[in-house]
Amino acid sequence: MPRNQQILLDNRPQGEATTGNFKLVTTETPALQDGQVLVRHHYLSLDPYMRGRMNDSKSYAASQPLGEVMIGGTVGEVAESRHPKFAVGDKVVGMGGWQEWSVVDGNAPGMLRKVDTTHVPLSHYLGAVGMPGVTAWYGLVKIIEPKAGETMVVSAASGAVGSAFGALAKARGCRVVGIAGGPEKCRYVTEELGFDACIDHREHGDLKSMSQALKQACPQGIDGYFENVGGYILDAVLLRANAFARVAVCGLIAGYDGQPLPLQNPALILINRMKVQGFIVSEHMEIWPEALKELGGLVGSGKLRPRETIAEGIAAAPEAFLGLLKGKNFGKQLVKLV
Amino acid sequence: MPRNQQILLDNRPQGEATTGNFKLVTTETPALQDGQVLVRHHYLSLDPYMRGRMNDSKSYAASQPLGEVMIGGTVGEVAESRHPKFAVGDKVVGMGGWQEWSVVDGNAPGMLRKVDTTHVPLSHYLGAVGMPGVTAWYGLVKIIEPKAGETMVVSAASGAVGSAFGALAKARGCRVVGIAGGPEKCRYVTEELGFDACIDHREHGDLKSMSQALKQACPQGIDGYFENVGGYILDAVLLRANAFARVAVCGLIAGYDGQPLPLQNPALILINRMKVQGFIVSEHMEIWPEALKELGGLVGSGKLRPRETIAEGIAAAPEAFLGLLKGKNFGKQLVKLV
Repeated sequence: MPRNQQILLDNRPQGEATTGNFKLVTTETPALQDGQVLVRHHYLSLDPYMRGRMNDSKSYAASQPLGEVMIGGTVGEVAESRHPKFAVGDKVVGMGGWQEWSVVDGNAPGMLRKVDTTHVPLSHYLGAVGMPGVTAWYGLVKIIEPKAGETMVVSAASGAVGSAFGALAKARGCRVVGIAGGPEKCRYVTEELGFDACIDHREHGDLKSMSQALKQACPQGIDGYFENVGGYILDAVLLRANAFARVAVCGLIAGYDGQPLPLQNPALILINRMKVQGFIVSEHMEIWPEALKELGGLVGSGKLRPRETIAEGIAAAPEAFLGLLKGKNFGKQLVKLV
Repeated sequence: MPRNQQILLDNRPQGEATTGNFKLVTTETPALQDGQVLVRHHYLSLDPYMRGRMNDSKSYAASQPLGEVMIGGTVGEVAESRHPKFAVGDKVVGMGGWQEWSVVDGNAPGMLRKVDTTHVPLSHYLGAVGMPGVTAWYGLVKIIEPKAGETMVVSAASGAVGSAFGALAKARGCRVVGIAGGPEKCRYVTEELGFDACIDHREHGDLKSMSQALKQACPQGIDGYFENVGGYILDAVLLRANAFARVAVCGLIAGYDGQPLPLQNPALILINRMKVQGFIVSEHMEIWPEALKELGGLVGSGKLRPRETIAEGIAAAPEAFLGLLKGKNFGKQLVKLV
């Protein structure tokens, strides 16, 4: 039985999350029962939603239980199978968690999905052609419902969700403006991802400055906004929103540590007759096939070239995750496990 | 030519509106041109949206110009007609403004509409079977989209919009909880309007207290909220909202005087996967016939028994309007002009 290094949630953050909230343990993978599959993880996905799960409060879906392996998406290879649908060597995507191996019930619907790596590298099934990409797709297509010629804005634009959002919005004939941290990320957003403009939030650190930057980057106003961050950027977007603008609220990283994050002027929702809608993509599984098909096509044809930041080894996951929350990653944050 | 008393907007409010913002003048109604109709107003409608129009800032639609007759809905009787579709004695509803008479272009679409007073008293065409009723209908039917068994909450529940909202939601099999100011209004809301419960906001003047009152009145949580007020009540509703709750934002009286009105915890929109949507009913004329038909039926059958507070004479309009903004009215606020 292979030796399996795992990272557990040891205790809950008091304010900011730290590496001390996690604990590395080593176990042996159990022997397989009928219907089970042993997966060797090649990559672990690190995503902002995990920070919400670390809190004990009501948050996105359930809290992460203490003393258990941290939840997380994984891609890997079937190492052993007692299920007729999975063969050794199959490439699979699942929710294996922060560990090197996982034993999965091959019959549980949606737990393990075989993927084709002919045109799409395996790691991208955790990013552009995985949950982050589908998240961008749902927010854009189902909540924002863009029309050609409209102006779309996305925060955390160089990340896995933001970069997919940009490609999907460009494919629909929109002007797309990103917000990212630092000149290097902004250059990537415009030059490699093909956004029409990108605002460096480090140069526009308050409401007034951000609002002016948005005015300049969005001369026709803002029709759709995909919210990954929260705080003063959302306030600034509301000031530049057109009548009937739509905001898809996907993440509010700025508030994960429990600090209050008020919206300064909600009256603008009425004045601009806006729609502001929160969502969790895992509650809309029915749209995944359509979204994954479009995203796979964009990656396969080179129209979406996602970046990755790769940490090495499961022990590096906590540090990489904390860096992600601070925007230290560049593109999709992964942990390489093989 | 009849002598016509009018109320003009003389100057814009600095903070709270006062009677000094208005000016009473007397003119003569002009002689009719071909295609025009002279209407004698029986009632003028006073509505919270007018406060937004008094400001110079970007608000609902256009600002009210200084030195012109205040905008407002009116019902009345055709006194003279040079239009083939309108005859002397016809009862009509229109946007005649704060004055005793108006001259209307009978060809302008939607400016003047004949109404039937057999089953519905003329004044109700300014309330339950008029713009306020249609406002409630749009927010409930098109934004909240209620299901039988869900819990609906409405602020300003004894008012023209709130009372219509309650009747429409009850007709769809919902539990309906009102919020109103004072025991007399709350009694009317439950006993005469048939709401399941009513919370007196004067007894629950802060977030914690209102949140507890909502918990008690809504044991299954809140699925839909119709927002007429803004401020801490919306914060409290968000704390009690169920997953996938919908908020229709129709008015934010609490913020009309320019004071900041932040939303304390917008993260709840994401956590509860909510939809918060602002609207102005005049931008959705296509739904008026369907809405008016249902509302007329509810009033005609006695299922909706709207109250009215009636001021006498055009000179009383400013004082009555300021009272409305402070919740001094009981039900629909009208000014009787004949």
